[in-house]
Amino acid sequence: MNDTSSLLARRKADQACAILRELGIDCWLVWVRETMQLRDPSLDLILGSDVIAQTGLLFTPDGERVAVAQEHDAAGFPTGLFDRTVPYAEGIAEPLRRELARLDPKTIALDYSVDNDAADGLTVGMYELLRRILAGTEYPSRFVSAGPLVERLRGRKLPEEVERIRSAIAITEEIFDDLASFLRVGQTEREIAEFVRLRMRERGVAPAWDPAYCPAVDAGPDKEFGHAGPTDRRTKAGHLLHFDFGVKADGYCADLQRMFFFGRSTEVPAPVRDAFAVVREAIESAQAFLRPGRVGHEVDAVARGIVEGRGYPGYRHGLGHSIGRFAHDGGMRLAPLWPIFGERPKGIVEAGNVFTLELGVPTPIHGQVSLEEDALVTADGCTLLSHPQTALVCLP
Amino acid sequence: MNDTSSLLARRKADQACAILRELGIDCWLVWVRETMQLRDPSLDLILGSDVIAQTGLLFTPDGERVAVAQEHDAAGFPTGLFDRTVPYAEGIAEPLRRELARLDPKTIALDYSVDNDAADGLTVGMYELLRRILAGTEYPSRFVSAGPLVERLRGRKLPEEVERIRSAIAITEEIFDDLASFLRVGQTEREIAEFVRLRMRERGVAPAWDPAYCPAVDAGPDKEFGHAGPTDRRTKAGHLLHFDFGVKADGYCADLQRMFFFGRSTEVPAPVRDAFAVVREAIESAQAFLRPGRVGHEVDAVARGIVEGRGYPGYRHGLGHSIGRFAHDGGMRLAPLWPIFGERPKGIVEAGNVFTLELGVPTPIHGQVSLEEDALVTADGCTLLSHPQTALVCLP
Repeated sequence: MNDTSSLLARRKADQACAILRELGIDCWLVWVRETMQLRDPSLDLILGSDVIAQTGLLFTPDGERVAVAQEHDAAGFPTGLFDRTVPYAEGIAEPLRRELARLDPKTIALDYSVDNDAADGLTVGMYELLRRILAGTEYPSRFVSAGPLVERLRGRKLPEEVERIRSAIAITEEIFDDLASFLRVGQTEREIAEFVRLRMRERGVAPAWDPAYCPAVDAGPDKEFGHAGPTDRRTKAGHLLHFDFGVKADGYCADLQRMFFFGRSTEVPAPVRDAFAVVREAIESAQAFLRPGRVGHEVDAVARGIVEGRGYPGYRHGLGHSIGRFAHDGGMRLAPLWPIFGERPKGIVEAGNVFTLELGVPTPIHGQVSLEEDALVTADGCTLLSHPQTALVCLP
Repeated sequence: MNDTSSLLARRKADQACAILRELGIDCWLVWVRETMQLRDPSLDLILGSDVIAQTGLLFTPDGERVAVAQEHDAAGFPTGLFDRTVPYAEGIAEPLRRELARLDPKTIALDYSVDNDAADGLTVGMYELLRRILAGTEYPSRFVSAGPLVERLRGRKLPEEVERIRSAIAITEEIFDDLASFLRVGQTEREIAEFVRLRMRERGVAPAWDPAYCPAVDAGPDKEFGHAGPTDRRTKAGHLLHFDFGVKADGYCADLQRMFFFGRSTEVPAPVRDAFAVVREAIESAQAFLRPGRVGHEVDAVARGIVEGRGYPGYRHGLGHSIGRFAHDGGMRLAPLWPIFGERPKGIVEAGNVFTLELGVPTPIHGQVSLEEDALVTADGCTLLSHPQTALVCLP
């Protein structure tokens, strides 16, 4: 962990303590082990490094930060991150009970949440272990979900987090620019994906999600957009080419969709032109509507209404998700009230949130037209962090 | 996922079904979502790729493998891995209930375990969601821990898994050989670590654990071995240099400790020579004792007995842990019965297990001497996968 990352972790920890005050929660306990195997997503925000043995990180509304950690793990913690580090050798039970008794919190927030995956880093076994360690005390009856805390902490990006996302988007856009020079009729999806991977390596960045479909490269009309990964399908004159791609740079992600057409702009078939215009209009309308206080599913409904109002079927996913440490950064969704999204579309948009705005519509014979932009919510609206695609990139 | 990895996933799934028969469990349900954020360690064994939406992977003692997955996720699954893929669009509840009703298992193993971290991939929120989805059915009362299943599945390495570990160890040893030519008096730990990172990049392999302390590089007598990472301490004539390092290659890990001495072999101080001999003897004794049927803490006790019998303090960690997909691969431990290890030292050694054998002892003024080898348990004993360090590497 470099100094900048360590500073960011301190600033996020400060933010966590402030959100504890706001929510009236007495303590946040991040309770983890063997984080190389399974890593509570909260750790990226407030620690950065990994631990092996059982570790309890405690944060209070007063701003106190305490780490109870095995001595070897504790030696790896960045200096200045914790006010107090309590190292142990053979067992965490006694020092953890002692620290909790000292703080005596009336509520203890733990990282579990049915709906918000990014706030659900506590495992069933670790939860049971904590109950056993605290058996005979009042503390197990004081457990509450840290869902609302983690949603705000991840969702409200600090300016330095926004800058990192902006950089990841800029690099992603540069690679799209490189693609415009590289793309030819007759290339396979695999060749094109390999070019993108090479460009990522040259820039020292990673794919923002599973490399099997980051980039997703979809040539021609017959490919279902999704996670199928690049195939041996070839680009053809008169066909569309679709990308879903973003890089992770300095720990933060971009997520964009872009469309290319093999032919002159005058050769774009009318149904493709119409589909592109509808997708643009839906994204722009959602963008105009997006601001603090909006409810997630209302934002989705604005875009979906345009699509369906123009006679296209509604897209089979949500309009937007948070981006940040992950391409899917958890928290509220700009999505319809479908069971798959749980309570997340009922969340309220806040300043500092960064969402994707993404959707596609089908054409009769040319396949889908699908675009995706990344938007930062500001005090009174939103601003795009990406340079929006306003026309098909035509490759004659 | 390439074809070899996909084949290995099928072979591990076959193995899982056989272990279900052995344990008399009717079904294993791997229940996950957003695995880029938080990834149940079992997925590496039996799927390989990531999923976004809620996904249920079901395995039965009859060998049936069923995936209930959102349609985009399902499109990314390797062909041939599942007998039956049930795609859904808006909610998993109905198709999951239907598949369970069809199989009607009397026991359903879920990935939770208090002691075995590698078998504890189910989160508290996902567990609660599953209970809600299955409310009104008998199934929540049939949940059992998949701990014993996952311990055997991870622990019993298939021949192709052993070969991958062997390759990771061979690459790690090559880098140690490169180091022997590179090391000079006056280098900093950071410079040395950077050389190791360069060699990893050249070979296209990753560090087996947190890059902050993989490699761990410890120069001279004053550094506490652990996770503190390389510093600006410099190598000096007459000083020891210690490494804890392994690469991850093709998805499998190595984990070795090696010791260098800056000086001629005739210049090695007597206390260092004695410490080295004791560490070697302790590792060799454990190696001679290790075989199927041994209890974990008994193996640790053999090595610990030698160390303490020679008047050295007992090492403050366990003698060994499994290696495999992770440097710490979960399951039983060759470790004392300390609270930090829970029930894991009570586990029984099986053929196909791969363990580290690692320990160190202090010297009065030259710091610690610590070594680590990797051993495969065979039908009637064990064999080292590493080429053991039998003498200090002296750099005059």
